[in-house]
Amino acid sequence: MKANLRIALLMVGVVCVTTLSLLPTSRADEGMWTFDNPPLKQWKEKYNFEPTSAWLEHIRLATVRLSEASGGGATGSFVSADGLIFTNQHVGAGQVAKLSSASANYTRDGFYARTRAEELKCPDMEANVLVSYEDVTARVQGAAKSASSEKEAAAQRKAIMAAIEKEDAAKTGLKSEVVTLYNGGEYWLYRFKRYTDVRLVFAPEEQIAYFGGDYDNFTFPRYDLDITFLRVYENGQPAKIQHYLKWAEKDVAENELVIVPGFPGSTARLLTAAQLRYHRDTGNPLQKLVWTSRSEALKRYGTQGEEQRRQAAPTIRGLENSLKRLVGQQAGLENPRIFQKKEDEDAALRKAVAANPEWQLAYGDGWSQLEKAYAELPVQAKRLAFSTLAASRLGMLASNFVRYAEEVRKPNEQRYEEFRDNRLEAMKLALLSPAPLYPEMEAAILAAWLEEGKRALGAEDPFIRAALGQAMPAEVVSNAVRNSKLQDLAFRQSLFTAGADAIQKSSDPLLVLARKVEPIIRELRAWNEDKILSIEVAAGEKIAKARFAVYGKSVYPDANFNLRIQYGTVAGYEEDTTLVPFKTTFYGLYDRANSFNEKPPYHLPARWQNAKSVLELATPFNFVYSADTIGGNSGSPVINRNAEVVGINFDSNVQKLPNRYLYIDEREGARAVGVHAAAVVEALQKLYGAGDLVKEIKGR
Amino acid sequence: MKANLRIALLMVGVVCVTTLSLLPTSRADEGMWTFDNPPLKQWKEKYNFEPTSAWLEHIRLATVRLSEASGGGATGSFVSADGLIFTNQHVGAGQVAKLSSASANYTRDGFYARTRAEELKCPDMEANVLVSYEDVTARVQGAAKSASSEKEAAAQRKAIMAAIEKEDAAKTGLKSEVVTLYNGGEYWLYRFKRYTDVRLVFAPEEQIAYFGGDYDNFTFPRYDLDITFLRVYENGQPAKIQHYLKWAEKDVAENELVIVPGFPGSTARLLTAAQLRYHRDTGNPLQKLVWTSRSEALKRYGTQGEEQRRQAAPTIRGLENSLKRLVGQQAGLENPRIFQKKEDEDAALRKAVAANPEWQLAYGDGWSQLEKAYAELPVQAKRLAFSTLAASRLGMLASNFVRYAEEVRKPNEQRYEEFRDNRLEAMKLALLSPAPLYPEMEAAILAAWLEEGKRALGAEDPFIRAALGQAMPAEVVSNAVRNSKLQDLAFRQSLFTAGADAIQKSSDPLLVLARKVEPIIRELRAWNEDKILSIEVAAGEKIAKARFAVYGKSVYPDANFNLRIQYGTVAGYEEDTTLVPFKTTFYGLYDRANSFNEKPPYHLPARWQNAKSVLELATPFNFVYSADTIGGNSGSPVINRNAEVVGINFDSNVQKLPNRYLYIDEREGARAVGVHAAAVVEALQKLYGAGDLVKEIKGR
Repeated sequence: MKANLRIALLMVGVVCVTTLSLLPTSRADEGMWTFDNPPLKQWKEKYNFEPTSAWLEHIRLATVRLSEASGGGATGSFVSADGLIFTNQHVGAGQVAKLSSASANYTRDGFYARTRAEELKCPDMEANVLVSYEDVTARVQGAAKSASSEKEAAAQRKAIMAAIEKEDAAKTGLKSEVVTLYNGGEYWLYRFKRYTDVRLVFAPEEQIAYFGGDYDNFTFPRYDLDITFLRVYENGQPAKIQHYLKWAEKDVAENELVIVPGFPGSTARLLTAAQLRYHRDTGNPLQKLVWTSRSEALKRYGTQGEEQRRQAAPTIRGLENSLKRLVGQQAGLENPRIFQKKEDEDAALRKAVAANPEWQLAYGDGWSQLEKAYAELPVQAKRLAFSTLAASRLGMLASNFVRYAEEVRKPNEQRYEEFRDNRLEAMKLALLSPAPLYPEMEAAILAAWLEEGKRALGAEDPFIRAALGQAMPAEVVSNAVRNSKLQDLAFRQSLFTAGADAIQKSSDPLLVLARKVEPIIRELRAWNEDKILSIEVAAGEKIAKARFAVYGKSVYPDANFNLRIQYGTVAGYEEDTTLVPFKTTFYGLYDRANSFNEKPPYHLPARWQNAKSVLELATPFNFVYSADTIGGNSGSPVINRNAEVVGINFDSNVQKLPNRYLYIDEREGARAVGVHAAAVVEALQKLYGAGDLVKEIKGR
Repeated sequence: MKANLRIALLMVGVVCVTTLSLLPTSRADEGMWTFDNPPLKQWKEKYNFEPTSAWLEHIRLATVRLSEASGGGATGSFVSADGLIFTNQHVGAGQVAKLSSASANYTRDGFYARTRAEELKCPDMEANVLVSYEDVTARVQGAAKSASSEKEAAAQRKAIMAAIEKEDAAKTGLKSEVVTLYNGGEYWLYRFKRYTDVRLVFAPEEQIAYFGGDYDNFTFPRYDLDITFLRVYENGQPAKIQHYLKWAEKDVAENELVIVPGFPGSTARLLTAAQLRYHRDTGNPLQKLVWTSRSEALKRYGTQGEEQRRQAAPTIRGLENSLKRLVGQQAGLENPRIFQKKEDEDAALRKAVAANPEWQLAYGDGWSQLEKAYAELPVQAKRLAFSTLAASRLGMLASNFVRYAEEVRKPNEQRYEEFRDNRLEAMKLALLSPAPLYPEMEAAILAAWLEEGKRALGAEDPFIRAALGQAMPAEVVSNAVRNSKLQDLAFRQSLFTAGADAIQKSSDPLLVLARKVEPIIRELRAWNEDKILSIEVAAGEKIAKARFAVYGKSVYPDANFNLRIQYGTVAGYEEDTTLVPFKTTFYGLYDRANSFNEKPPYHLPARWQNAKSVLELATPFNFVYSADTIGGNSGSPVINRNAEVVGINFDSNVQKLPNRYLYIDEREGARAVGVHAAAVVEALQKLYGAGDLVKEIKGR
């Protein structure tokens, strides 16, 4: 029934999308814009907002990319001169869990460092700020011009990108990354200032950050204090930050413009119909299978006891979030009207290209190239999905050690991207993360994963055969994991110091297992890079150039976890036959908790149960706005025209979920959801005794 | 967009209805059962509830039918030995408005009589209790057996029904009504004890009874104190009541069984596919046009000033409620899956009948009879709808006087039903109602009505020609209404006393107008009775007997504003991707008000604004349950197994709206909405200083 209703909702959404798309698009708050091409025209027309370049630079330098060695990543923002970062509890949750133990459960009880000395170093999180960028499209595309094949072109692009990164890093001492935009239409060199000493300052109880659990996730009205404060250090001291955001003097008003800078993770709005068909028919269903089997394995493990539940909880929460989002995205693709709309967009561009002989000659075959390449993908997709040990953190560590040993021997430009010199430090941080590992949990996950893989691929599949031989997953894993020393940080450090040879000779049973499957994984990765990725870039470049030719640079690139600027209006909306307000209050939290008789996930932490008399219950708690955000914007600051913090982004409502594939119009009720700045101050002050923290963010 | 979403919701609903209808129906809390055939089996199986016949009699005698001369009607229940009746504010609202004036606005400010002396007599409301009933099917159906035509049969049925009523009334001194059930499948003699002296004891501010206005109507979560207390008097003293409901000692629990007796107004679940097609394609759209034009006329009038707004408000509220319900019902019929389901039900019964020669012979032609009759209806439907003056209360009074003068001359059994002896007293109450009339408003409504009628029927239509001649509606009305004395009660009393001749000779311009159009109206009513109603009863009887033959008496009759008993479980439900709780609290009222910054219709009465500190905010406010209710159940007591009041019914959610045509399964989230008993006591005691009233209902 849930699914049905969700789909129904989307069908409705799109009924209106199609009708409303006839209206002037200037009305829509669409877009995840790069800082080199902000939507100045839209801002001026709709909001009479004309920021200076200094304003934009200030925002860019105050916005932070947070990433975890485990691969998770999101957004934060500087909110004090002393390196204080404001983000979501669910962004910091991984680190909070890793800092927790059976005896000190910060996930359950929350954490607040009353002094700098009490701030806890996050085991494996880094913060990056985009300090400058330049267009290197000509160099990258030029390098591949002479290539005789797409495969060779891809190799040459990789080489030149690696070279640019290395030379620039050497020159600037910054973390330099060549970023692909518009699926190959543009290449930009992004330079990041990197902070690796990130410490935990404050996190509330997960139950108040995640009140309503998976049920209320992606819904509104909402009542969550999904916030966390971190602090970056340099040389053991809080980093001095010049560009940080001030806290708003007054509450954001209904219908006010808000700006939301951040690092949206991934969209697929510029894909061709052929690519979307793959997502709908193969990619998404497969992804769902993978995530479901992992989350079920973790839930089974969690049933063994309270401590096991604690160990598994953060990953389960992340997977449930991903699954609920995926179902909403897939419902969008499965909606005939939405899919038709995408096919029409694609057809319109092809038609415009075909109408111009010059364009047709230069770009025309991009579509057929992709169609041809994707025709082969479904057969391999399952192998690509299941041929990995990375479902478990320990398995990922083992594979990364093995891969590291092989890659570092190669010249920089021939390595896998993640092992290039400019990324090696991040890789080292991952390999040597002090984050606790739970061998029993890792074993349970890995065994279940190999079982699922065997079911999906069959016993005769090369990866399965290499991993299991004739044995059962359980025995293979229990030997490989239980007798491995990889969970021991000291062992990993000595191994890393000993270097590539030592790693390749090590008899650690998990490394042995990783070595067995590595050739298969490399073979598949090579196939994917040659047959799919290289074509995606080559064809992507043509289609992007075609799009620029036809529409000019009025479009924004698909999101890929790089800095963007988004915007919207604070506004409620209609749902069913009534109105949804633009904000909620603390009153609503107590209504919902009491309405369910505090049955989980609607129970309140003790601190909150007894706070009714302490809190000003009319304080705004959560609020909604029409900014075009997506996963990765978690923790994005929500700011007003004066660049002051009026809230923090943490979710979207269900109406908005299909927006991975197309912009869902704000007039359909698609909204981003944030925690209101007033709620942050009220709670910190009245419930957490965090007056000093409030002083720091308010600068007074 | 609202409509889209509503329909989407219904499409979903029914996706599941069709799938879930495969499940054991014993799980469904379906049915509006007569007291002679309560769902004992379902109660026993699902709830292990086995009430005694004394229990059922007690409920029947404690449940009250409230009806207004204006035609409105709903439910109430006795809650004290002194004739105290518990109902909804929106049930009493018409009387409250009639008791109000520009200087004493009880609709806006609420009303509480601290002493019996302060209780205000309702101008035109009566209360009826069903004291006994008996099956007279054989007599009524028998009387028509010899008839040579359906028309003659109908006349003979009318005659015998009138005779039965008259003879029984004479014998018992009660108000005796022969009631048609199962569209003619059964006839029952219902005897009512009638109370005509009904007084207003308590009504809250409309804004708290109707918080959220038309937007939140038919939605949940909900936050309305939609209650009113009335008291029936006999011989100037509070009536002594033996069977009244006790107030529950403890709050109703989640998943607890509740019983909801009352007077559901009208359902159309036993109609044939042909009849439903008429509703969908002609009846409902026409009804919508009629109500919309009336409500727009009233809104225009209301814009003239605060006092005009006050005069028009109660009728507008009623029309908006009817329109929102109608749109939901029509959305159900327009939903292909719902309609298919109805056609399948109909076809299944026809098939079963056809399979049995005896049945086929006796009942088989019922369907074709209806199909034939309904084929003629659409042409006449518009005339039937617009050929009346009753759109305005003054116009209705005029027509009823004219009709009265003609009908009372006839023998009882030949009169229109509403003028039969046993109903004359009610008619007199209506004709001589002291309720204030606002000539300017009446003129505005009537003029707009005739304009709309002219548009719909054309200038050459007999009714329009008779009403207007060559003049404009405005002139006709301004003369007829402004120079009429009918708004003057004294005039109406003298006219009534003077009798039929005087009425027919009166030169009052409004009576003259009514006399002009009366022949047309009578002609149309005759056509409708001969061509449609008589066939409906004749064919209805056959189809009902067929249904009894095939399914036994496991079905309940369609609702027709007679006493029924309904039941369900107190339970929340899933909506979109989250959970809706089974109750709300006062916290939620303040959340919603503050979330909209108290923008109307989300503003709070002053008494409530300043009450946050006074009220126990966790008190349950509204709650939902799966009882199969519909309009007319407003004011139905919601009771537990011990026949104690745990709440009062006042609304349904949007998922449930199509239930005029079929039962919408509770597993689709269809719910009835009630005010929780705890909220009533908390508000009366803490906000209204009505401690004595609380003592009376709690009996302590």
